[in-house]
Amino acid sequence: MASIFTKIINGELPCYKIAEDEHHFAFLDINPASAGHTLVIPKEETDYIFDLADERLQSLIAFAKPIARAIDKATGCIRTGIVVEGMEVPHAHIHLIPIYDKHQNFSLGKKTNLSSEEMEELANEIRSFLT
Amino acid sequence: MASIFTKIINGELPCYKIAEDEHHFAFLDINPASAGHTLVIPKEETDYIFDLADERLQSLIAFAKPIARAIDKATGCIRTGIVVEGMEVPHAHIHLIPIYDKHQNFSLGKKTNLSSEEMEELANEIRSFLT
Repeated sequence: MASIFTKIINGELPCYKIAEDEHHFAFLDINPASAGHTLVIPKEETDYIFDLADERLQSLIAFAKPIARAIDKATGCIRTGIVVEGMEVPHAHIHLIPIYDKHQNFSLGKKTNLSSEEMEELANEIRSFLT
Repeated sequence: MASIFTKIINGELPCYKIAEDEHHFAFLDINPASAGHTLVIPKEETDYIFDLADERLQSLIAFAKPIARAIDKATGCIRTGIVVEGMEVPHAHIHLIPIYDKHQNFSLGKKTNLSSEEMEELANEIRSFLT
């Protein structure tokens, strides 16, 4: 069965899309740890990120880099952190999480409530720095 | 002034070394979030990971991959997660953190106490799966 992320890639489930190319896709996490929290995934359905071929692992992080910098510009965060845990969805994904407080250890356990309008606006802002 | 990590690379400060090549270095975090927690760094002193050139960012993640897999084998963890936060030392570093409990969100805020003998043994075990 297709993973929930594959359904998002295929347009069968909605998302706040940030970017896409031949092998990668990025969209806002709907349960954000902070405003601008983005998931970056390979289109290939591989559970464990370290099972990706070197080429795909390297292209994934290179795909994530301009997105992280766009998040920085769009949100005014201090910088964007990375978390890869992968215990919930068996499709490798990089969490890009804007850090707003340098003294607060970030954690996927923390959640920020945002309206759909705020999510759409964030996605638009981030995308505007990618063009 | 050289970062604490540069001093570790240069042998001016001790570490439980895991691996090294021309551009990268890896060693156990002395305040581990879990047993086997390893730091993977570029030798180049760049504060923000997304300021690294694409080539170095990509070589860094490729350098981290076999280390993560060696951690998996050495520790028997479920898998190894990634955290990049970078608020403490201004020298980009990837935390490779073994995950032992799939229901527990990992966080750099959690610490595991290990003796120097346990750290040395862990480093030896991880290195043994890299050869």
